[in-house]
Amino acid sequence: MFEVTARGRELQARLQEFMDQEIYPAEAQFAEHLADPDKRWTIPTFLEELKSKARALGLWNLFLPDARYGAGLCHLDFAHLAEIMGRCVFAAEVFNCSAPDSGNMEALVLHASDEQRERWLQPLLNGEIRSAIALAEPGVASSDPSNLMSTLSKRDEGYILHGRKWWVSGACDPRCSVLLVMALSHPEAPLHQRYSMLLVPQQTHGVKVTRALQTFGYDAAPFGHGEVEFDQVWLPEDSVLAAPGKAFEVAQSRLGSGRVHQAMALIGLAQRAFEAMLKRAADRVAFGRAIGQHGMTHQAIARSRCELEQARLLTHATASMLDRRGSRLAREHLAMVKIVVPQMACSVIDRAIQVHGGLGLSQDSFLANAYAVARAQRIADGPDEIHMTSLARLLS
Amino acid sequence: MFEVTARGRELQARLQEFMDQEIYPAEAQFAEHLADPDKRWTIPTFLEELKSKARALGLWNLFLPDARYGAGLCHLDFAHLAEIMGRCVFAAEVFNCSAPDSGNMEALVLHASDEQRERWLQPLLNGEIRSAIALAEPGVASSDPSNLMSTLSKRDEGYILHGRKWWVSGACDPRCSVLLVMALSHPEAPLHQRYSMLLVPQQTHGVKVTRALQTFGYDAAPFGHGEVEFDQVWLPEDSVLAAPGKAFEVAQSRLGSGRVHQAMALIGLAQRAFEAMLKRAADRVAFGRAIGQHGMTHQAIARSRCELEQARLLTHATASMLDRRGSRLAREHLAMVKIVVPQMACSVIDRAIQVHGGLGLSQDSFLANAYAVARAQRIADGPDEIHMTSLARLLS
Amino acid sequence: MFEVTARGRELQARLQEFMDQEIYPAEAQFAEHLADPDKRWTIPTFLEELKSKARALGLWNLFLPDARYGAGLCHLDFAHLAEIMGRCVFAAEVFNCSAPDSGNMEALVLHASDEQRERWLQPLLNGEIRSAIALAEPGVASSDPSNLMSTLSKRDEGYILHGRKWWVSGACDPRCSVLLVMALSHPEAPLHQRYSMLLVPQQTHGVKVTRALQTFGYDAAPFGHGEVEFDQVWLPEDSVLAAPGKAFEVAQSRLGSGRVHQAMALIGLAQRAFEAMLKRAADRVAFGRAIGQHGMTHQAIARSRCELEQARLLTHATASMLDRRGSRLAREHLAMVKIVVPQMACSVIDRAIQVHGGLGLSQDSFLANAYAVARAQRIADGPDEIHMTSLARLLS
Amino acid sequence: MFEVTARGRELQARLQEFMDQEIYPAEAQFAEHLADPDKRWTIPTFLEELKSKARALGLWNLFLPDARYGAGLCHLDFAHLAEIMGRCVFAAEVFNCSAPDSGNMEALVLHASDEQRERWLQPLLNGEIRSAIALAEPGVASSDPSNLMSTLSKRDEGYILHGRKWWVSGACDPRCSVLLVMALSHPEAPLHQRYSMLLVPQQTHGVKVTRALQTFGYDAAPFGHGEVEFDQVWLPEDSVLAAPGKAFEVAQSRLGSGRVHQAMALIGLAQRAFEAMLKRAADRVAFGRAIGQHGMTHQAIARSRCELEQARLLTHATASMLDRRGSRLAREHLAMVKIVVPQMACSVIDRAIQVHGGLGLSQDSFLANAYAVARAQRIADGPDEIHMTSLARLLS
Repeated sequence: MFEVTARGRELQARLQEFMDQEIYPAEAQFAEHLADPDKRWTIPTFLEELKSKARALGLWNLFLPDARYGAGLCHLDFAHLAEIMGRCVFAAEVFNCSAPDSGNMEALVLHASDEQRERWLQPLLNGEIRSAIALAEPGVASSDPSNLMSTLSKRDEGYILHGRKWWVSGACDPRCSVLLVMALSHPEAPLHQRYSMLLVPQQTHGVKVTRALQTFGYDAAPFGHGEVEFDQVWLPEDSVLAAPGKAFEVAQSRLGSGRVHQAMALIGLAQRAFEAMLKRAADRVAFGRAIGQHGMTHQAIARSRCELEQARLLTHATASMLDRRGSRLAREHLAMVKIVVPQMACSVIDRAIQVHGGLGLSQDSFLANAYAVARAQRIADGPDEIHMTSLARLLS
Repeated sequence: MFEVTARGRELQARLQEFMDQEIYPAEAQFAEHLADPDKRWTIPTFLEELKSKARALGLWNLFLPDARYGAGLCHLDFAHLAEIMGRCVFAAEVFNCSAPDSGNMEALVLHASDEQRERWLQPLLNGEIRSAIALAEPGVASSDPSNLMSTLSKRDEGYILHGRKWWVSGACDPRCSVLLVMALSHPEAPLHQRYSMLLVPQQTHGVKVTRALQTFGYDAAPFGHGEVEFDQVWLPEDSVLAAPGKAFEVAQSRLGSGRVHQAMALIGLAQRAFEAMLKRAADRVAFGRAIGQHGMTHQAIARSRCELEQARLLTHATASMLDRRGSRLAREHLAMVKIVVPQMACSVIDRAIQVHGGLGLSQDSFLANAYAVARAQRIADGPDEIHMTSLARLLS
Repeated sequence: MFEVTARGRELQARLQEFMDQEIYPAEAQFAEHLADPDKRWTIPTFLEELKSKARALGLWNLFLPDARYGAGLCHLDFAHLAEIMGRCVFAAEVFNCSAPDSGNMEALVLHASDEQRERWLQPLLNGEIRSAIALAEPGVASSDPSNLMSTLSKRDEGYILHGRKWWVSGACDPRCSVLLVMALSHPEAPLHQRYSMLLVPQQTHGVKVTRALQTFGYDAAPFGHGEVEFDQVWLPEDSVLAAPGKAFEVAQSRLGSGRVHQAMALIGLAQRAFEAMLKRAADRVAFGRAIGQHGMTHQAIARSRCELEQARLLTHATASMLDRRGSRLAREHLAMVKIVVPQMACSVIDRAIQVHGGLGLSQDSFLANAYAVARAQRIADGPDEIHMTSLARLLS
Repeated sequence: MFEVTARGRELQARLQEFMDQEIYPAEAQFAEHLADPDKRWTIPTFLEELKSKARALGLWNLFLPDARYGAGLCHLDFAHLAEIMGRCVFAAEVFNCSAPDSGNMEALVLHASDEQRERWLQPLLNGEIRSAIALAEPGVASSDPSNLMSTLSKRDEGYILHGRKWWVSGACDPRCSVLLVMALSHPEAPLHQRYSMLLVPQQTHGVKVTRALQTFGYDAAPFGHGEVEFDQVWLPEDSVLAAPGKAFEVAQSRLGSGRVHQAMALIGLAQRAFEAMLKRAADRVAFGRAIGQHGMTHQAIARSRCELEQARLLTHATASMLDRRGSRLAREHLAMVKIVVPQMACSVIDRAIQVHGGLGLSQDSFLANAYAVARAQRIADGPDEIHMTSLARLLS
């Protein structure tokens, strides 16, 4: 209801058409690809073909507000597109709008030098390579950044990076070529100047993706959440993004719009789960009536619809606020989105599973995987508790 | 964020100013008036004075979308005003915007004959009399209208009304002059043509307000929710509103905008409770820290803020939909508002009580009474369960 | 299921019989008494008559584990009796088992001098007088005892007590003769030796019950929760219970069994609400079926039954642990009871209200008042949050 | 607290010792076995060795109340043992107490002919073979048994079984030798006499395990939940358990104690998650304090402890009721256990995941898999909704 522009509406229609004609029909193929242990960690050809098609149609880099590099849409316009893409786990990739590349590209647009842009931003914009972002570390509570221990030390003409990161989303993708890595460079400085953000080529000596982490039983192949070892990695001086000690600023710049994208994607996924619940409720009969005519199913449907619509309105409002007032004044709303959307998605998808019975838990349905994705969002990018605390502090 | 008109914004500012200068300062006086058993069921003079002031300033009949009779605002504009008024239990009355008069006036505008308008609508618009609406009946589940048993039978030149109603809001107000009463007139007709809506002067022979009902321990003096006996009441033929058998249509016409008004008023009340919670959290110290620095208070604050904002956006969206598409296409949203807002208000006010401790339960705070008001809304106008069922059915 | 003794079972049967024959039939009379503004704050004659009958039957002082003064039952035996009494708000009083007298008598048994026992304990045991307990204070977070500001200062042969207390349960009862008052006597001592517990005759110069506090709209007449002013009250030296600086020990001794009694009473009240819900669900018809055949009512019934039974078992287990291991080892369970039971009672009673519709909110049903009683218990004796913190600390 | 026998206590101590010395140390080995794709669906040698050790120590067939075949313990005694075993996913198997074998053995003891006992019960009791149970079917709501479509038809000297089953727990285990299969044999009979229970050797012509189903990405290797095809399977006449048309009676007999076992196992798993949460809360530091000192963690810990203890008491009470009054009179409690325990386990484990952050979702912790196990129990053996409906009906 927040007013989308004419261009936004037109893109919605075209994106919707592409989803119907190209993406949904390819889902079975994707599932088949994943079911083959030998192919699981490779990229299916059809995915690259879909990317070419999407790019040819102008459905490309839609997330980028800077019109020199991307579609130049406002946040509210893109929010609607992100919901549509979010309905299928691999769709955003087809439009070169998938995390963490989207956030990384935004950071590069804002903070990279011309050489860095040339080397990394351009191929990312072209969808030729992919990237990852490495913030969290095993063995500590990463939600408190002062716990992060990977170090960056000056050496000769460059730096030595040493440490271990995990939940490095995208790191297992065979096309992943560069990692943004946050490391402790100025241990004596005040917290927000203590860390630097690095651009680390995946092929550097000493960089090793040791394994793919699972969420519940899912390994997110072929993209993966990697655990990555940085063993005395030498990096040239121009590996630092923005400037030494500026990691927080870089991370911050990925945040505002990124959070809205991710929230809308999750709303898209929850909406799809909700539609599956409605369909199942209408089709399946128990004790002489469609499940959808049982009172408790009414409740599951009604609550889900209410929660979905409210979360969607909240995220639209936040996108609109980003457009009109900027991320600083939208901080309260950004915190609310982070608190509300993942929990809503968990609730809605969980009810959809319940209405589906055993089917909903199994590999025959997208629901259990969708739940895992939603549940992870209550932890990734800071657990609920952190965001509730931030919000409460903003309010007092 | 849904765009309010310039006139709406201007009215908001003036209404806000009136609240600050006239309404809030009068709250203590109102409490004092209620505390005196002899005055409790009379109307305090200052209330009528405030009405005159408000009317003089054009803050009058703001709820009425028909510009011939009222302010002619769209639903979205009025929604914002209703939230502001809702913060104080007697404020809407001052602007002649209080339920059930507002809904009754809307119904009279749409369905009354010229004579009926002359006799009842005009003095209501002037704030000279008040009215009540009598739908529910004791002893049956009134949420199923087919249970309603008060009968209307043809007799000579008129009708005989017989039965008993309860939760007749406004009936105990000494200024209440007319009751809209729904009665069974065509027992053999299909359900939606079985009932008629009557205009019954309070002073009619056989009409008796037998007592004021309480919600929790509150009697809502001096307005009151009455139990009313109709003992063989003779009514002339022109007592029927719209036409015989048209009670559902009349009731329906009170509904769309009425539900938005009531929801926004409740949001205003919950918002005020939330602000009280913030203030208390900042002021009160326990175990060496302000309560607001305890983690569980963070949670109470964060959840409340999220729920409030989402409910507000949902109601704004519904108002906007009423404006743009009409009440038929807004049915789904109207059901959502009814499900969401009272539960949100109960949750937020309950948390505010908890943060206030014993004070929050007592007469020294508005919170306990606010909770009673919010809790009643989960039953009045149909219990949650009915609305969840309706919503689920609309979706399938 | 925790094994009650043969004597406990026999008392249950007799108590049950007394409830059926004497208490329930008197409820209407009690309601009538309260409805009369002139009698509201007096004690109805029938109540004293019922006390005589109960005492004659040996249904008297059942709560007191010390057989020299009371029934000498173990906690588990009495827990079952407390549930039965809890079903009616004035029943415990009839058996001289009502709070705060019961806890006060326990404290006097353990800590009073012979003179104090003679003067206060004996008439309390006889049901001739009643008492109150004054801990909380207005204007501060009383859950943190270090906030309490009423002072006790040495003067001549005695003390001066000065301060203000509220939520002094029982203080408005015309028979209330003595107040236990906690006051700051040793401001320099460590927290747990800083306060003294006093026995203050209600009729002392400078003691004034200024008003009755309400919970939601209920004033708990004729017992009442008073606000009490102590204006430079002179007290003789022997007014101190136990010894100066021992208020915490005295308060502690009221706690273990008191918490179990109160929990069981609340379980009795919630059980009665549950039974009312079942009856209503069976009787009331909506949309062609008894309400009890609607799916959402199934859920309300099933969840309530599960929560009730679990809370009851937890409280029985706690009583049994008090009997077998003493209050120190039962601390964890006592905290759990305090966290679980009031919230359970609120949920169950709230669902019962919802199933009853408008009736459930009104004075025609005991439910709304029962809700207020249950809700207050989430604050009285420390808010939920305090008990969750204590429990978490005990566990780590 | 419900009184365990001396023998029960002694077995607890020995079981606990075995867990500490043999089971927990083997967990890493089990994880390693599963991580190897080539071994994943085979049985690790150490498991069979542990079985021999356990049997030698008399920790064997503890679940069987019939002393001729098993330990002859009462339900309450075994409930405590089941909780201990439930802490590790493969432990019950070591003591020959794992589902579905335990329930199947109970059914065989009660309903099998001497020949059937000889052929299937004896090797099951010896732990030489394993079994499965096939009730649910794909494509229908299996919670309504009248939906089940696999048919059994008379043919020559035997029967033809035709149909498809899924969620056949244990069917993928290489040692699985026999399946209990419920099939429609008397389509014209009243519902409860319409189905027969068959003993189908896994190696029979036409029986094919087509795949292992997953719950949240987990395939439960090496035991597995199979989808099984029965393609015109010929079975001799003595394949029917009990008698033709008696499937419901057989299924019922597996139920009472089975439900208690399963609930206690889940309580054991949730208890372990809770202990992990406590440990993590104590160890991990964020923002200058151990996570366990944050208020929201207090709440997570306190609520979990309360829910766990209540669910445990409820299940103990149910076991005790089975022992004293039999399964018919325990029906209400059995329904409560089914409603309460899986939801409690989901809540507790979910909170433990949240306190663990990313670690809790990953393969480095048992928590995510534990969640999947608990979540599946809200669907297996009938979804929550069915049990709430049954309970509500029992109560009215």
